[in-house]
This record gives sequence, C-alpha cells and structure tokens, in this order.
Amino acid sequence: MGLIRSWVESANGEDCPFPLNNLPCGVFSVSDDEPRCGVAIGDCVLDVARLEEAGLLALPGKPLLDVPFWNEVMGAGPAVWAALRDRLTALLAEGAPDRAAAEPFLHPLVDVSLHMPFLVSEYTDFYAGRNHAFNVGTMFRGPENALPPNWLHIPIGYNGRASSVVVSGTDVRRPWGQVKGPDHAVPSFQPSRRFDIELEMGAVVGTPSIGPVTVAEADDMIFGYVLLNDWSARDIQAWEYQPLGPFQAKATATTISPWIVMKAALEPFRTATPAREVPLLPYLNEPRPMLYDIALEVALQPEGGAETIIARTNYAEMYYSAPQQLAHHTTSGCAMNTGDLLGSGTISGPTKESRGSLLELSWGGKEPIAISGGTRTFIEDNDTLTLRGQCKGDGYTIGFGDCTGKVIPALADPYAR
Amino acid sequence: MGLIRSWVESANGEDCPFPLNNLPCGVFSVSDDEPRCGVAIGDCVLDVARLEEAGLLALPGKPLLDVPFWNEVMGAGPAVWAALRDRLTALLAEGAPDRAAAEPFLHPLVDVSLHMPFLVSEYTDFYAGRNHAFNVGTMFRGPENALPPNWLHIPIGYNGRASSVVVSGTDVRRPWGQVKGPDHAVPSFQPSRRFDIELEMGAVVGTPSIGPVTVAEADDMIFGYVLLNDWSARDIQAWEYQPLGPFQAKATATTISPWIVMKAALEPFRTATPAREVPLLPYLNEPRPMLYDIALEVALQPEGGAETIIARTNYAEMYYSAPQQLAHHTTSGCAMNTGDLLGSGTISGPTKESRGSLLELSWGGKEPIAISGGTRTFIEDNDTLTLRGQCKGDGYTIGFGDCTGKVIPALADPYAR
Repeated sequence: MGLIRSWVESANGEDCPFPLNNLPCGVFSVSDDEPRCGVAIGDCVLDVARLEEAGLLALPGKPLLDVPFWNEVMGAGPAVWAALRDRLTALLAEGAPDRAAAEPFLHPLVDVSLHMPFLVSEYTDFYAGRNHAFNVGTMFRGPENALPPNWLHIPIGYNGRASSVVVSGTDVRRPWGQVKGPDHAVPSFQPSRRFDIELEMGAVVGTPSIGPVTVAEADDMIFGYVLLNDWSARDIQAWEYQPLGPFQAKATATTISPWIVMKAALEPFRTATPAREVPLLPYLNEPRPMLYDIALEVALQPEGGAETIIARTNYAEMYYSAPQQLAHHTTSGCAMNTGDLLGSGTISGPTKESRGSLLELSWGGKEPIAISGGTRTFIEDNDTLTLRGQCKGDGYTIGFGDCTGKVIPALADPYAR
Repeated sequence: MGLIRSWVESANGEDCPFPLNNLPCGVFSVSDDEPRCGVAIGDCVLDVARLEEAGLLALPGKPLLDVPFWNEVMGAGPAVWAALRDRLTALLAEGAPDRAAAEPFLHPLVDVSLHMPFLVSEYTDFYAGRNHAFNVGTMFRGPENALPPNWLHIPIGYNGRASSVVVSGTDVRRPWGQVKGPDHAVPSFQPSRRFDIELEMGAVVGTPSIGPVTVAEADDMIFGYVLLNDWSARDIQAWEYQPLGPFQAKATATTISPWIVMKAALEPFRTATPAREVPLLPYLNEPRPMLYDIALEVALQPEGGAETIIARTNYAEMYYSAPQQLAHHTTSGCAMNTGDLLGSGTISGPTKESRGSLLELSWGGKEPIAISGGTRTFIEDNDTLTLRGQCKGDGYTIGFGDCTGKVIPALADPYAR
C-alpha cells in the first residue's frame, strides 16, 4: 500500500511523519483553551473532539471524545478504532466531499501545545531486548553468565510507576537517592551521578481483560504504540535492586511521545521476532509476526550546543513482542485495563552504535562517547535527550513525534519548603 | 482515653470491633441498591453518603461522599478527616441531640454487602519485616547471608499491581504460571502448587505529593490502614523473580479488609519501631513513634472443617514504618496520589508460631503444620484464609473486619473460551 493522498497538502510529502496513512492520536490545546483530543495530519492537528461534538464523526453509541484523553476510544475496542479511522480517512482524503465542513477544525501544529494523550492506568516495564540484556549482564556478571536463567523462557518484566509517565517536552529533574559504591562502607543520600535514558517502545492497552489471554488476543487488545524513554538512575538502581528489582531508580520520570500511533498504521511494517534460541512454552507462541520495522534513534543536545545522534537501532531487534509480554502478564489471572502501558525494554542492536542506553554506549561509564563539542558517559545537567522513530513505506513515512526531555539540575535540598 | 459511649448500644461492648472510637470507612450496599460510603458503628453501618445528601454532615465545600468510594474524602486532607470524625462522633455519642435524625440511616451489618472501600491508584509492596526477611533469606541463602546488603539501610519494596486488589470475601482462583524446579531442565506451565498468603498491613495514601517528603509529612499524608493479604505463588516467584523482582507470582489477588481504620482511631496505639541495628540516613529518621500495637492473627479453614489459628503476631514487629516507606518512595521525585496503597511486607514475629506466611510456617514446605483435621504446607483448594487485627484499648477494641478469601481450584484450561 502506498501513500493515501489528502487534501491537506503537507500530509502528502514523502518524509512527512503524519500522512493520511498515520492518523496518530494526541491531546492538544490552542492558547488558553482547554486540552482536547486531536489527530495529526500533515503540519496540522484535526480537532476530533469538536468534530464529534458537531456531529461530523458519526461514531456509534455515546460520545467518546468529550474528555481530554483517548481512553474512552481505546476501551471501545477494535471495531470502533476501525470505524474512526475509516471516517477520518473519508473526511481527509483528496477529493473528500466533506472537506469544507472539516477544514475549520484544523489547527497548525506550530500553534498548539501537546498534552498526555491518555490516562495511564498502570505501567509495566519489560527487559526483552536480547542485546541490551546481554550487554548489561556482561558488565555485571561476565559474558558467560550474562543472560539470567529465565530470560530465554519468560519475557521478564517488573511493575513500574504510572505516576512517573509524562508527555514529551516535560523537563526531568535529576533525582536524589540512596547510593552506595562498592568502595564505600555505608550508603549516602545524594543526587544521582549516573542518570541515563532507555530507548523503548510502549504498547498501549485498549480493551481490558480478566484472566489469561493468548498472544493473538493480546495483540487484539493493543490500541497502539508510543516512543518511551525509561529514565534510569544507574547508581540508585545498583544499590536498591536486589532482590526486589528496580524501584526509585525508575520512578523519576518516564517520557512518552505525544502521539499514539494506532496499530492499523503500523500494519504494513509487521515483522517477526528473531528465531528462538530455545523453544518457548506454547502459551507464548506467536501466530503471526508481532514486531514492527520501526527505525529508532537517540539524540543528545547539550545546552546551547548542537545535537548528536548517539544511537540508531530498530524495534525489530526485540526478542519478545508486546503481545507476548501482555499475554505473559495475564497468566496469573492479572486483570489488564484500558490505559495500561507496557514498555518494551531497552532496544539495542548488535553494534556499539546501536545501543539504546548510555550505560551500554559508554560501557558502564568507562568509555566516554563523542558528542558535538565534548564527550559523555552519563547525562549532564541541561542536556536534552530525544527519541525518534519512523516507518518507511512506499512513498510515505509513519512518525510518532519527538519524545524529548531536558534534564534540569537536582534540587539543592529536597526537603527545603 | 477510654471508650466513647454511643447510643448505638452494640458499639459499647468491650470486644465490639466498631465502637465510636473507631468509625472505620467502608462501602456497602443493601439488597439491590447501589454501593455507597458507610461507617461501621457497633453491629450497624451508618449511611454517611445519604447523611451528607440530607445535609446532616455539614462538611465544608462540595460533596465528598456522592461517589461509591472514599477517595474524595481521602484527598481532602487531615482537616476534613478530623471534621468528619468530629461530626460523626457528635451524631452518634450517647445523648446526642441529633439521634432521631441519624437513626434512620443505620443498617444492620448482617443485611449489607461490603465492596472495595476505595479506588486503588497504585499498589506498592514492601519487605520491611525483619523476621520475615531473615527467615526467607535463611531458606534461600543460609543464615549468614540472610539479609540483603541494602536491607538495614532502605525499606526495600517493589511496585505491585493495583488491578490485583480485591475486597475481603472475594474468591481467589489458584493461578497458572511458568515454573521450573531445580531438578528440571526446562520450565513448564501449570497451576501453582505452592500458593501462599502474606500477612500484612496496608497504608492508604490520602493527600497526594509531588517531590520528596519527610517521614513526618508522609505520616500526615496517610489516611488510614487496612489488613492486607498479599497472595503469593512461591513456585512462580522462585523462577521469575531474578533479577527484576516478583511479578506474576503476586498479581493474582491482593485482598484487603472491607474497612479502612483512620489514623485517628489508631493514635492511642502508636509505638516505636525497634532499635536500629545500624544508623539510618537522616531522611529516614522518625520524629515520633510511627508503628501501631495491632495484634494480628491468621486463620485457615478447610472446606467443611473447623478453623485453626495458624499464626499470631503484631504490627509492631516491623523494622520500618509506613511513613518511612512512603518517604523513601518519594525520594526520586516519584509523585504519590490519593488511593495509593502501601503493603507493609510480611509481618512475622520471632517465634515459629508468629510467622506470617506458610512459606515460613512450613519452612519451605519441609515441616507441615498441624491444622484441625489434617496438616498443611501450602494452601489447598477450597481452603479459606482469614486475617484479623485488633487494638485493645481501655475498655474497647479497634477492629478492621475480617480480611478473608477462599482459594478456588485453578481453571482446567486457562485458554478455553
């Protein structure tokens, strides 16, 4: 399938991230007006909330877009998602009869502010990138014991903190925490000195479930995908994480892209997980390809300096897919809800340039990487980190919008009031 | 302070769990009517939702009880909590002038169903019982390495699954999961054979926070406490938990008592945490006693059989208090919200009879314990497990209501539809 042409001319450029093929879901506001749901098209956002209010969307049932988040649509299920896409495609396609009615609902993207696109119910973060797990395991335990024994059998993960999730553009304050280096007898409480990113994709749960679901059912439950930066304080993590896993090291912030790309837009880019190194238990088998070919990059920009791309990789590097993770998540009977967010785990490729964290890029801080005008091991104050992702179709591009955050200095005294 | 006498005569008995000193918060329904907020008094529940509707509560501001959960009150802060208690005490005290107005809002407890008392925002579970950590550590690593290196410095915890939290009386279905014993080459997918309880208290966050808070501020944020059973599949946990911590082993169910006991009711029972074995970092120091003297017990009843009390202990056995846990939870800047639930960790005393889990009581399944008509290592199908807690005041008792759940058999095929 090639580009679907729109009467919004800017949407027809080969490199435009928001062609009619995409229609990603966000929440926007114009000047002082209240935030509401919108869909990106070319260099504009279409105010779908007011389109619905004006009776131009004709979705079945009660209003779904009268709230400043996409959860109502997400929970309505695949038939409604498809109906919405069909209707928006008809409204925005080249030669659409309703063009004159729709046009007043467009706002230039440069004029709007973007907000959290959905309410996060719960957030789970996985550890499903083979190269990342091998790299981190090698640093801590040596290459022969790099992968934990369960790793090739379970898409292992931990529950993260939903309250940490923020939209792209939100500043991230360097955290304080309890740390203890191997050379110190007792821990200390100080600002993190090894603050890091993790390049991930996030899967957004649409339809809820009670009880175990298959991988195919899990795929059907997913509404769409976002870029996700799982900010990580490595020094806090090293001291706290045994035996219960990461906790405060991951609770400062989790930045997501402002746009949720619906699964339908990613369909042409489906690709299979790599060959299994050991057979999986049947409940984890994939009935069809469950990953996507999404080119990813990480940019680092110091305050006032030029941006350097510090990593390039692809979502197809994952060993486990989001539907496998979601299916495993339900095995115990764990109920999943609309708005649950599943982080893929850090996406690293096989080469040094394709590593999705500074921990790996600088090999635990031992090998500083070159950036424009300097070097980095971990993040320095006032650095801006940006994740980007795109799928390249036949004459068109699918984008997520930048997933960006600037790290501002730690509080001088976290308990000063 | 002694018993505060009420015109609800049943509330004045020395062993009644719901005297006027208590006033715990629940959600109830009568026959087919909708669930609403109520407060237990003697052998009755007072319909505070309809009292507010009738203008008899006179709380400041907008209605707080027009929803079937306590979150609006919880989020309104300590001044509102105190005003509500004052007003309810005035309404229900012996000789109250408003007795005739209030009496129609009482329903016998035997006639009502109890529901979840609040919406759980996020759920965090800690591991802050010294004896539990030592017992479990000894089983897995030997007594010399029993406590993890961070244990005496950090109230370690992990994020649990809010969607697992259910109210007392909800059946708990034995989960399936991926397990691998040390003698097996590959894992298998099967119903858990080592399904267990964990006897805990839960702290319920009332007022929200952004950024780090002190232990004193954390105490002020807590609305009240519940009994909490952190159901745990030990065989699933053993295989999955390294290096990211417990995940599906703890996601089947987390049962809480139907009543939240407000902090004010527990005030006379405040007691200090035990002496520190090593000094804490200043941010964790307690400005005043932060635990409570709450006698706890666990009962096991097989289907059709008699109940056996299998453990007796006390909340004062904790090494870290809930305010210490909550303060630590915020160190990274993690935002806390109204309805966040913090599990204390398993509460075990120093003796064999005071251990708060079957894992410890049966020493990893090696030493079956005697129950009425048989023995147990872990939970068998159709066993009912009940946690109870009470504070003994001068002529009165503070109770939480039973925290109970029956374990029903695993699904024959979790993927049959």
